[in-house]
Amino acid sequence: MEKKPWLESDIIELFSSHETEPVYDLIKGIGDDCAVIRPSDRQDLVVTADMLVEDVHFNRSWHPPFALGRKAMAVNISDIAAMGGTPRFAFLCIALPGQLDQDWLVAFRDGFRSILSEYAITLAGGDTVRGAKLNISITLLGSVPASRAVFRKGAGPGDSIYVSGHLGSAAAGLALCQSPHVCSALDERMVHPFLQRHLDPTPDLACGILLAQSGYVTAMQDISDGIATDLAHLCRHSDVGAEIDSLRIPGHEHLPGICAALNRNPMHMMVSGGEDYHLVFTVKAGEEQALEQYLAGKTNQAVYRIGTITSGSGVTLCTGKGKKDITFKGYKHSGSN
Amino acid sequence: MEKKPWLESDIIELFSSHETEPVYDLIKGIGDDCAVIRPSDRQDLVVTADMLVEDVHFNRSWHPPFALGRKAMAVNISDIAAMGGTPRFAFLCIALPGQLDQDWLVAFRDGFRSILSEYAITLAGGDTVRGAKLNISITLLGSVPASRAVFRKGAGPGDSIYVSGHLGSAAAGLALCQSPHVCSALDERMVHPFLQRHLDPTPDLACGILLAQSGYVTAMQDISDGIATDLAHLCRHSDVGAEIDSLRIPGHEHLPGICAALNRNPMHMMVSGGEDYHLVFTVKAGEEQALEQYLAGKTNQAVYRIGTITSGSGVTLCTGKGKKDITFKGYKHSGSN
Repeated sequence: MEKKPWLESDIIELFSSHETEPVYDLIKGIGDDCAVIRPSDRQDLVVTADMLVEDVHFNRSWHPPFALGRKAMAVNISDIAAMGGTPRFAFLCIALPGQLDQDWLVAFRDGFRSILSEYAITLAGGDTVRGAKLNISITLLGSVPASRAVFRKGAGPGDSIYVSGHLGSAAAGLALCQSPHVCSALDERMVHPFLQRHLDPTPDLACGILLAQSGYVTAMQDISDGIATDLAHLCRHSDVGAEIDSLRIPGHEHLPGICAALNRNPMHMMVSGGEDYHLVFTVKAGEEQALEQYLAGKTNQAVYRIGTITSGSGVTLCTGKGKKDITFKGYKHSGSN
Repeated sequence: MEKKPWLESDIIELFSSHETEPVYDLIKGIGDDCAVIRPSDRQDLVVTADMLVEDVHFNRSWHPPFALGRKAMAVNISDIAAMGGTPRFAFLCIALPGQLDQDWLVAFRDGFRSILSEYAITLAGGDTVRGAKLNISITLLGSVPASRAVFRKGAGPGDSIYVSGHLGSAAAGLALCQSPHVCSALDERMVHPFLQRHLDPTPDLACGILLAQSGYVTAMQDISDGIATDLAHLCRHSDVGAEIDSLRIPGHEHLPGICAALNRNPMHMMVSGGEDYHLVFTVKAGEEQALEQYLAGKTNQAVYRIGTITSGSGVTLCTGKGKKDITFKGYKHSGSN
């Protein structure tokens, strides 16, 4: 076989293209934010697994251990949120370098524990091993009322596309961590929300549950690799295309200023930056107002309509200068699910 | 805090000593081979997670990728077997070095797939990431009829202690891999079962299911760190002690010969060697014959009575020379669960 670098999609394909007997209670296997298992008539289990590797997904030199303990869990909660589920049981496998400072591990544990408490998640098992680099692999089981999980599949032409928060903030936060001289020259209050979004993101769990309950949402997934990539996943699974309007993409009011200091393009950061951990979802045409009213009575979380599902394929960004294909042009870290 | 190397037990304690509200459907959390979750009245879920790290748990220079793909799953199946469960859904998180040969990955995938087929397990999700060292983290969900999972807790004084296979073979196999000059000087047919047991162990799944169904078994766990350590876990959970008879511990007929060539002590290998992936279980006093008859009609797998549960604590090895405390004197790799 030819030697070329593996793409994540190739590896997933390598492992998933297996002919097996259909399994009566596996509602959804590989290919969504979570697997969905039906062990009983009244509830479905949603299961997600993520691996974070030192120097690939996080940098220990700037990532405080407390925040990392929270983030390692938050990225999994975000996957559960994207199904409309409620997280329940966590399994933590962690490889620890022998020379790891004990204070570091205690702070990591405290952060991990704080987010468990915050979301009423129980740590139910796992494995602790040695390893040259820190590696954190979490499996999170959640529950959702039977048949109420929301998939990537389900969007239809004419549906409106929404996101549940500002895009690009985490990517700007990462860029600030990578350029400490730029970061320290800026006002601390200005950079804080961006650093926070990279280091200790809040998953949109309550929003995901409400969206699933509302009955207005046709497809949903979380945004971990940037809207350009994650909306492309949603489109591929739904066999549709998407057009999004650059003027409607929500960003933090200070993103342009931060990007100017970093010499980066804010639109690129919003569209292709990774680790937003907000939700992208679609709403049936004509039901947008009903959805917005439904949410307004139940949450303060703003949602933003950024475009429309088409009968085509891929993701198109519409700007004042014309249309541009941005399909799968998102952040190429190596995360999946 | 004082800087000293972490013991695995310290780390588990660090993460598990968290006061939380009791969760109605978590039957068993941290501290057994699997967590047990009750999502329905008719079946329980058993969940285990294990992480295998290159150069800690396996050596890529001698471990064929096909066998490694099988073993990575086998160690999890063994945990499910130890609860009496049936494996169902797997989640594979894998960190791959960028320079990893594609043929290697395909062979690993083929091995992984072969064991999935063999045990009718469905790969339901996971994550693929980059990492400097290969890291394989698997979460395996299984099912067991409600309330029929067998725990580490439950052994009582007078119960007989059994193991489900030869001990020490995997440890001898590892030693042979570590001493290729010794290995190549020996007859290939002689070393094969030992290499096989280290490289591609067969979990005792059918046996675990039968033992749980029999109703005679009071406690059970798999032997991954050696009987000295794993029986000590079972004793600690059951609040009892154990005495085992050195003459009754079963080993392969060629173990003494292999150990002589390796200049290693066969009894030490059987008692403290790791990765046997057989089961240790206890049977209520007086029900030994009933159990053995029950098994004889259903499986060819031999089980061996090696000792008796006592009202004390810890694990005692009884030899011709007297008694010796071997509590937790097992293999110190860093695996758990």
